[in-house]
Amino acid sequence: MNPKINFTPGPSQLYFTVRDHTRTAFREGIPSLSHRSQAFEKIFRHTTDGIRELLSLPPGYQLFFTSSATEIWERVIQNLVEEKSFHLVNGSFSKRFFEIAGQLGKKPEKLEASAGEGFEIVGSVPAGTELIAITQNETSTGVSLPLDFIYDLRDKSPDSLIVVDAVSSLPFPDFDYSKLDSVFFSVQKGFGLPAGLGVWMVNDRCLAKAENLSAKGICIGSYHSLPALHGFAVKNQTPETPNVLSIYLLGMVVRDMIRRGISNIRRETEYKAALLYHTLDRHHSLSAFVKNKVHRSRTVVVANTGDQTEVLTRNLIEKGMQPGDGYGTFKKSQLRFANFPTHSKEQFELLVDSLI
Amino acid sequence: MNPKINFTPGPSQLYFTVRDHTRTAFREGIPSLSHRSQAFEKIFRHTTDGIRELLSLPPGYQLFFTSSATEIWERVIQNLVEEKSFHLVNGSFSKRFFEIAGQLGKKPEKLEASAGEGFEIVGSVPAGTELIAITQNETSTGVSLPLDFIYDLRDKSPDSLIVVDAVSSLPFPDFDYSKLDSVFFSVQKGFGLPAGLGVWMVNDRCLAKAENLSAKGICIGSYHSLPALHGFAVKNQTPETPNVLSIYLLGMVVRDMIRRGISNIRRETEYKAALLYHTLDRHHSLSAFVKNKVHRSRTVVVANTGDQTEVLTRNLIEKGMQPGDGYGTFKKSQLRFANFPTHSKEQFELLVDSLI
Repeated sequence: MNPKINFTPGPSQLYFTVRDHTRTAFREGIPSLSHRSQAFEKIFRHTTDGIRELLSLPPGYQLFFTSSATEIWERVIQNLVEEKSFHLVNGSFSKRFFEIAGQLGKKPEKLEASAGEGFEIVGSVPAGTELIAITQNETSTGVSLPLDFIYDLRDKSPDSLIVVDAVSSLPFPDFDYSKLDSVFFSVQKGFGLPAGLGVWMVNDRCLAKAENLSAKGICIGSYHSLPALHGFAVKNQTPETPNVLSIYLLGMVVRDMIRRGISNIRRETEYKAALLYHTLDRHHSLSAFVKNKVHRSRTVVVANTGDQTEVLTRNLIEKGMQPGDGYGTFKKSQLRFANFPTHSKEQFELLVDSLI
Repeated sequence: MNPKINFTPGPSQLYFTVRDHTRTAFREGIPSLSHRSQAFEKIFRHTTDGIRELLSLPPGYQLFFTSSATEIWERVIQNLVEEKSFHLVNGSFSKRFFEIAGQLGKKPEKLEASAGEGFEIVGSVPAGTELIAITQNETSTGVSLPLDFIYDLRDKSPDSLIVVDAVSSLPFPDFDYSKLDSVFFSVQKGFGLPAGLGVWMVNDRCLAKAENLSAKGICIGSYHSLPALHGFAVKNQTPETPNVLSIYLLGMVVRDMIRRGISNIRRETEYKAALLYHTLDRHHSLSAFVKNKVHRSRTVVVANTGDQTEVLTRNLIEKGMQPGDGYGTFKKSQLRFANFPTHSKEQFELLVDSLI
């Protein structure tokens, strides 16, 4: 049977209002709506305005829809890097971002941390770095980079674009967007929607960079280049027929979150994370994978479960809870737990009671 | 109010079983399913096997999921063209395909037909053409290219890859896939699903060409290059977190169509198209945009409606029917009518009764 509570870090449990919103969408004909209609433009506007409000996005930031965060990795490299990107790699997803730069013919450099570790301080950014790629929350290891650490990179390398992958952390982090140039996420994690949509936020420096590369004759892609996305977004449209239903659902969930209050969501996230880490820290046989407390993700908690992994998983599933497998080589020795806005305090209390 | 019958050519009316399948999907937790789980692999397999059966795809053909047909235009050019593609352009969408090749730094050539016209015969294919791009059904003009005309290009230029955009015609055309190298569609037209998924079918020649370009050091993209898509597809997976819900729904609709019988669907499509063209041909003031009967699309019928466009539209909407606007410069003087498998004979009878 399908467990009632899904702690996998993505796709994760749906936000608790999604099913109702989907019903409304079908009733109102949203899935058949033309993406060139005024009704669609209204939905586009409702969703983008909602995200701006929820995340306190400063004016000048643009918001575009792609099909996934994986696509955004590719579009970031295509549109914002002529040659040199610099990647902070501390897990499988930041590594993949780095690799994509190589596949697209760029000359990326990286600084690597060991599994389960973050970065204390970056000595220096390589000369000529056009873009610093940061995975703020590594879904594979549960390592999160503190915001001050990220802002510090701006001071160290003011001419580099700072691009932040916040796929499995937003809407939790309270970013100061004026110290970043681009942030992106996908909807099937913290926003609790069915997978199939990425959200890419960029400032004017990014648009200028893409225009600049294009003027130099460098290929920045076609329908999803930044100028193409921007050209349609100013009309509240997308270049291609997009995932209209998902854009609608995101807008509705974002409004639900605004009503609930982003500070409440953040406070509850802190509480639930503290509860689980506290349990792991005092446990006789389980432990948190990330030792350094400042690097512990609040939204994806990774537990060392060793040879108890299988028993524990079975036990949780019996109680109606689905944990996430460990990632890659840790598949049999770790479990991952998403702590997203849809996961209630009561669900986390049930989880920790079942771990003790 | 939202009309009951949607004749817009895409996104169009949902296939009549989609709402029920969506309900089942939510009940079974499909939208939260991990794309690395066995349950997802089963869905992937169910959908791809279903499409193979419905379309009688020969062995050796591979089937990949993208986010849209627009994405497939880009991936086709990236993966299958070193320099020279040759495009048959007879409307806005075939023109866009051509333009994308230029944006990606290739040297495309084109043969153009006037609006509302197809091609009688292609004299010769330019020397060195690596790929011939054919929009089998032009959604903007309602022009369809006969299958024999397309197969004839294979004889004329056996070394060129033949790539067919069948976005707004499949599952209607009964292609002989052995005479083509790649065919693609998106799900929001003939398959009647919410937008947000493209299906790209390719044979071994395409895979070999992409490998060959890559070996030469030409960039073929990253996560959605043909080798990357293929590497995951053999495991019944996708490189990125895909639109899982849509892949599931497509599989369910395809099974519904198999049960109904593809030959029945094709026969009914012919009947409904004949009904509408017959009405237009005998009408005192309306007419079919496409004059040459062999070029008339069965799945997207375009009517010259002149100065009656607005009145006619209002009249149809009052009767619960939503026609599609004319495309581009024909927005105020034409109407388009999708004739997809979800549109019943009774709906078409009601439509033509309302036009007389």
